[in-house]
Amino acid sequence: MATRSTIMDTNSFRAEGAALPEATADLVRRRGAVLGPSYRLFYRNPVHLVAGHGAHLTDADGVDYLDVYNNVASVGHAHPRVVAAIAEQAATLNTHTRYLHDAIVGYSEDLLSTLPDDVDRVMYLCTGSEANDLAVRVAQAHTGGTGVVVSAEAYHGNTALTSGLSPALGTAQPLGADVRLVPAPDGYRLSPPSGLPGWVDSEPDVGTWFADHVARAIADLERHGVRFAALLVDSIFSSDGVFPTGFLAPAVEVVHRAGGVLIADEVQPGFARTGSTFWGFERHGVVPDLVTMGKPMGNGIPVSGLAARSEVLADFGESIPYFNTFGGNPVSIAAAQAVLDVMRDEDLQANALRVGTRMREELRALVRDHPRIGDVRGAGLYVGVDVVTDRESRTPDVAGALDLVEALRERRVLTSVCGPGNVLKLRPPLVFDDADLDRLLTELDDALRGLGEG
Amino acid sequence: MATRSTIMDTNSFRAEGAALPEATADLVRRRGAVLGPSYRLFYRNPVHLVAGHGAHLTDADGVDYLDVYNNVASVGHAHPRVVAAIAEQAATLNTHTRYLHDAIVGYSEDLLSTLPDDVDRVMYLCTGSEANDLAVRVAQAHTGGTGVVVSAEAYHGNTALTSGLSPALGTAQPLGADVRLVPAPDGYRLSPPSGLPGWVDSEPDVGTWFADHVARAIADLERHGVRFAALLVDSIFSSDGVFPTGFLAPAVEVVHRAGGVLIADEVQPGFARTGSTFWGFERHGVVPDLVTMGKPMGNGIPVSGLAARSEVLADFGESIPYFNTFGGNPVSIAAAQAVLDVMRDEDLQANALRVGTRMREELRALVRDHPRIGDVRGAGLYVGVDVVTDRESRTPDVAGALDLVEALRERRVLTSVCGPGNVLKLRPPLVFDDADLDRLLTELDDALRGLGEG
Repeated sequence: MATRSTIMDTNSFRAEGAALPEATADLVRRRGAVLGPSYRLFYRNPVHLVAGHGAHLTDADGVDYLDVYNNVASVGHAHPRVVAAIAEQAATLNTHTRYLHDAIVGYSEDLLSTLPDDVDRVMYLCTGSEANDLAVRVAQAHTGGTGVVVSAEAYHGNTALTSGLSPALGTAQPLGADVRLVPAPDGYRLSPPSGLPGWVDSEPDVGTWFADHVARAIADLERHGVRFAALLVDSIFSSDGVFPTGFLAPAVEVVHRAGGVLIADEVQPGFARTGSTFWGFERHGVVPDLVTMGKPMGNGIPVSGLAARSEVLADFGESIPYFNTFGGNPVSIAAAQAVLDVMRDEDLQANALRVGTRMREELRALVRDHPRIGDVRGAGLYVGVDVVTDRESRTPDVAGALDLVEALRERRVLTSVCGPGNVLKLRPPLVFDDADLDRLLTELDDALRGLGEG
Repeated sequence: MATRSTIMDTNSFRAEGAALPEATADLVRRRGAVLGPSYRLFYRNPVHLVAGHGAHLTDADGVDYLDVYNNVASVGHAHPRVVAAIAEQAATLNTHTRYLHDAIVGYSEDLLSTLPDDVDRVMYLCTGSEANDLAVRVAQAHTGGTGVVVSAEAYHGNTALTSGLSPALGTAQPLGADVRLVPAPDGYRLSPPSGLPGWVDSEPDVGTWFADHVARAIADLERHGVRFAALLVDSIFSSDGVFPTGFLAPAVEVVHRAGGVLIADEVQPGFARTGSTFWGFERHGVVPDLVTMGKPMGNGIPVSGLAARSEVLADFGESIPYFNTFGGNPVSIAAAQAVLDVMRDEDLQANALRVGTRMREELRALVRDHPRIGDVRGAGLYVGVDVVTDRESRTPDVAGALDLVEALRERRVLTSVCGPGNVLKLRPPLVFDDADLDRLLTELDDALRGLGEG
């Protein structure tokens, strides 16, 4: 299997023509006959799901899968409190924000109480892409600039604007003319060899290194007559390959000195995922000017948000009309409120911290002597396992990582990859418990034996 | 009240500082303290809704309102079959399209069966804005051009790209550099005076006139070295002021001869709204290359779609990865399937045709001698009432239309305006029945007396 040109093409199959059970093959064929050619499936042997509960999914044959991938169903698949909130609100009223409704006000007060004091206003949309699209427009209106800096393998959305801010989409998708890339803060490859996966959690120099690259990107924009507007980053650098160390503060200083703003893309790290803090940017000790959020916000009901410092939002809000028909509708807000309530009542942030920490510790012990695993890193329940050809060169092994993902799928464990395609991405629902982790470790141990032979 | 610079600012209030009941004033104040400044409310005296059923909404004091505005809740507010479908699926499974799922395949087959044979593939997204954003990118990838032609008061979405295709947002929002406008096909003002509202339904010359303007816009793009990609139009020209006559065929010929494609924005006219056909473009006897749909698709659950001819979709689909996390999720699809089922089982297209036709007939009789109503027009349950300073000059009367909207709100009838702000927009849920219409006519008659004195 050759290295793919884009992470979006990795673990991505049409499955038409594959040797599949007849019922699966028929569904794949019918699917291919009606859906656009952009649609892809996970795994050479795709999974046909019919039900979910907690961190578990069930396929059409009644087989149970362990979900170590889905961060949307963050409080667990089909959580009864979220389901009840959705059902009750849908049976009562579902309109839009041009009428007064209590729930959006109460939820906004609740949501903003989790954010820094200065981040004091929120807008609702339906997808993370919409949130990032709007955040960039708001940043541009506020700064008067257009230049945006993103990381080298970033993914920030699928709209025309955000696709141009998403190098992860591959070279067929042009970047925006006013976009500059900075290398991913890959502390693993920046550091001297230690031989032990996991050392990167304490590496101190990444912050200065990253800030320097941001400064150079801003200088390059200015050299081209492009005024700088924003640094747009996911604070756990999910798409780049999961780089969790708290190193953003020096870069944010550079951004502010240059007159730009920080947009924290919390679509991945937000809502307790990273364990030690509720929002990913908090781990870096920075206060963003704009915060975008999505995926887990409604546990699967489409809802996203843009929170902001009011003075940053003002220029856009006063001059350009903005209305999102479905954004902040009562059903989406009911789902979002239930998610926030469940996260608190079930103490899922603490669970993410505890189980995530145990996951990294046990994984590091498990792969200690496995020459194809170069690093285990992450924060809370966002963990990356860096697959390499060997520990000396640290060359990313995309084929090896994909083989591992497929081997896990055959063992009924759902994962995928990120980064250049060589990083096994472990990102389960936050209800993932010790028994789930034991099962993951057992199956991964088994799958790794196959990789060793590869 | 002065004419506003943009339709999006019309019937659009913050209501802070307005003389309101204490509980309402408190909610408005709390809302203003947490939501971004872009948020606006309908009516100087905003409506605080708590429940809905059919074409009726209930406020916090238990007062019943007649809903003559909301096209999202197209099969009626809180329709029990849609609610049940959402609740059942949410309690079972809600994931994404990288796993196989039966429902999206079955729904896609069902949806495509309502479209022309050539329109044979579909993609799912969450909002109409996302659908139009993607449609334009697909059209650009297929044609190799970038130029897009839209109508003079069009609204096609709130992303960076679609905002630049939405002159209705006002002059503070720049149009895209490769965007050209054609005048709205305002058959009312193009025709010689007849003295009788409603004549425009039989006007034959608008088609040639509109095609000529499209040809000139394409020529202007080419003169500037911009290759033409698409004509993007809502076939009932909702935002322009509701222009229903079937006149698009000559323009579509011009588009195809110039190597461009037709994107039919069916977010407003689609899903049986226009009565005589299920899709708005069918009334024009044209086959689009791309069809975008949204609002009523899931009766309020965020779901939208892009249907396309496969050969038009191929260039984008083969080169650019596209994945929409929430797009086509099982809950959204369950809602969409229930909407399609209810529309058929309750024969809502026939209801839209019958009640909409009666609405226009009775309205024309009602306003026959009212000098401030210049025209009554529409298709099915999308009706525009053109408010003018006088029937001779036909000058749009924005203040008069807004007074009418406010007078109707005080009479517990919810409407709004479109076009340059002078067209009363009547666009109720498709379950709107004869008793609802009688109530609208009674209240409108009363409200018009106030307008006469204005």
